[in-house]
Amino acid sequence: MAETPPFAHVAIIGLGLIGSSIARAVRAAMPEVELSGFDANAESRAAARTLGLADRIAESGAEAVTNADLVIFCVPVGAMGPAAAELRHGLKPSALISDVGSSKANVLAELQAALPDHAILPAHPVAGTERSGPDAGFASLFQNRWCILTPPETAAPDHVDQLTRFWQALGANVEIMDPQHHDLVLAVTSHLPHLIAYTIVGTASDLESVTRSEVIKYSAGGFRDFTRIAASDPTMWRDVFLSNKDAVLEMLQRFSEDLTALQRAIRWGDGDALFDLFSRTRAIRRSIIEEGQDDARPDFGRSGS
Amino acid sequence: MAETPPFAHVAIIGLGLIGSSIARAVRAAMPEVELSGFDANAESRAAARTLGLADRIAESGAEAVTNADLVIFCVPVGAMGPAAAELRHGLKPSALISDVGSSKANVLAELQAALPDHAILPAHPVAGTERSGPDAGFASLFQNRWCILTPPETAAPDHVDQLTRFWQALGANVEIMDPQHHDLVLAVTSHLPHLIAYTIVGTASDLESVTRSEVIKYSAGGFRDFTRIAASDPTMWRDVFLSNKDAVLEMLQRFSEDLTALQRAIRWGDGDALFDLFSRTRAIRRSIIEEGQDDARPDFGRSGS
Repeated sequence: MAETPPFAHVAIIGLGLIGSSIARAVRAAMPEVELSGFDANAESRAAARTLGLADRIAESGAEAVTNADLVIFCVPVGAMGPAAAELRHGLKPSALISDVGSSKANVLAELQAALPDHAILPAHPVAGTERSGPDAGFASLFQNRWCILTPPETAAPDHVDQLTRFWQALGANVEIMDPQHHDLVLAVTSHLPHLIAYTIVGTASDLESVTRSEVIKYSAGGFRDFTRIAASDPTMWRDVFLSNKDAVLEMLQRFSEDLTALQRAIRWGDGDALFDLFSRTRAIRRSIIEEGQDDARPDFGRSGS
Repeated sequence: MAETPPFAHVAIIGLGLIGSSIARAVRAAMPEVELSGFDANAESRAAARTLGLADRIAESGAEAVTNADLVIFCVPVGAMGPAAAELRHGLKPSALISDVGSSKANVLAELQAALPDHAILPAHPVAGTERSGPDAGFASLFQNRWCILTPPETAAPDHVDQLTRFWQALGANVEIMDPQHHDLVLAVTSHLPHLIAYTIVGTASDLESVTRSEVIKYSAGGFRDFTRIAASDPTMWRDVFLSNKDAVLEMLQRFSEDLTALQRAIRWGDGDALFDLFSRTRAIRRSIIEEGQDDARPDFGRSGS
């Protein structure tokens, strides 16, 4: 980036996988930006200091945001409101408030209620791994991933432009979306997949007829794929489901209907119905690979394949 | 392998991902073994010849199995019986018959009916990728994967010993199991995951409120993981569900109950129930990695992470 960075001082509240990845990516892409950070967990603050994630890791949110031009909340969506209320008195009036939460309508409302005098521009970088904590982050996490901004109607075009340039500098493609539509899209591309993965891993753990050791040994038949996202952070995901309830329930209902139809096809030996669906679903994977959203190598390019 | 190979001449019927991987692995591990092969599809036979997969790619199954000591059927489970019946007259009386099908009770019955005078010892290497066809195979596919043998009560211990040594030579760990139990274990570790993946990819494709292009763009939120196994061979998987119907329906019923319980927890805002499950499921992934059944790197070690 030869241009002037869109924000001179960025404060990151919450230094887990996403927060610490933003810190690393800012350092790599915009080294002149002043970076401060805070995490409610003392161990995470200590780890962040050891890793040198920011110029300053503060002992409170209010201290971390002093003089910041952009404040990004990287905490579980259920913790956004309380975290914002707590540091309110430290913010300068011109600070732009953003976040990285996986649901947007609810988070916008929480941040607006906590910080009624500040400009709020929610964002969601659609990127991550199953790991958590300051150690889990890496600078290239947002490369070629999408970051969705969901500006409220009152958002200033300058703010949208600045935050767009910020995320582009970190390697992301930026899309603008209505918060309600975001929540519907992510319910299907992220929340429902996580819910299903958590469920099947739970179902497999609770069987009496098949041992846990058998489930583990023969997991390469497909099951292991689901265990990756079912290893994601429990607090983060509990909050996502509670905060995006309506859209998740709507998608879950559709999924259950479709699964029941397949169950019936199996029971009645309707091979054509199975074959038709199984042929249709190949095309989507091809498109995802063409769009650069997944690894083209078989088996995700897992080591050994 | 300094020892004498357990079979001097191996015939492979069906030269897709698994059949062609066996051919490559035999070549690598036991180069002195005579290899012959056949595929019902003329293009696959041509590809197998170009790739040099075997000493001889025959124009019929009966021709391929002439003089073979071990015949391995690597065709969809619904095609095992017809494929075996067709080549019956080419088999020598001492030939051992095996397969690689994903369901075992049904396949054993089909092979016994088609080849009543031959020794039959079904097997299932729990390994694969989402790719199909002779080009998709590779020699290391079975390394550190499990291969389950499901000997009928009449099986000769010598045959079990020979086939065990054969799969061990290809890099697999061998386990002996009852066919019915195999079908229950695989219903949960492989068949149910595939069914769920196919379903969610279908559900996402059919939405009106979210476009297909949005599903693809934001798939890195979790959905893309499911598209991999939903890109698996449609014929193979149709046959698996029809042939392992009872076990699949039993596992599906349990999964649906568990999903309904989570749906209710979301509707009623029961965060503790969600958190409890989400905390429990992390441990299984850890065990799978410890047992060497998946990549320890975050995001399966996908390129870029």
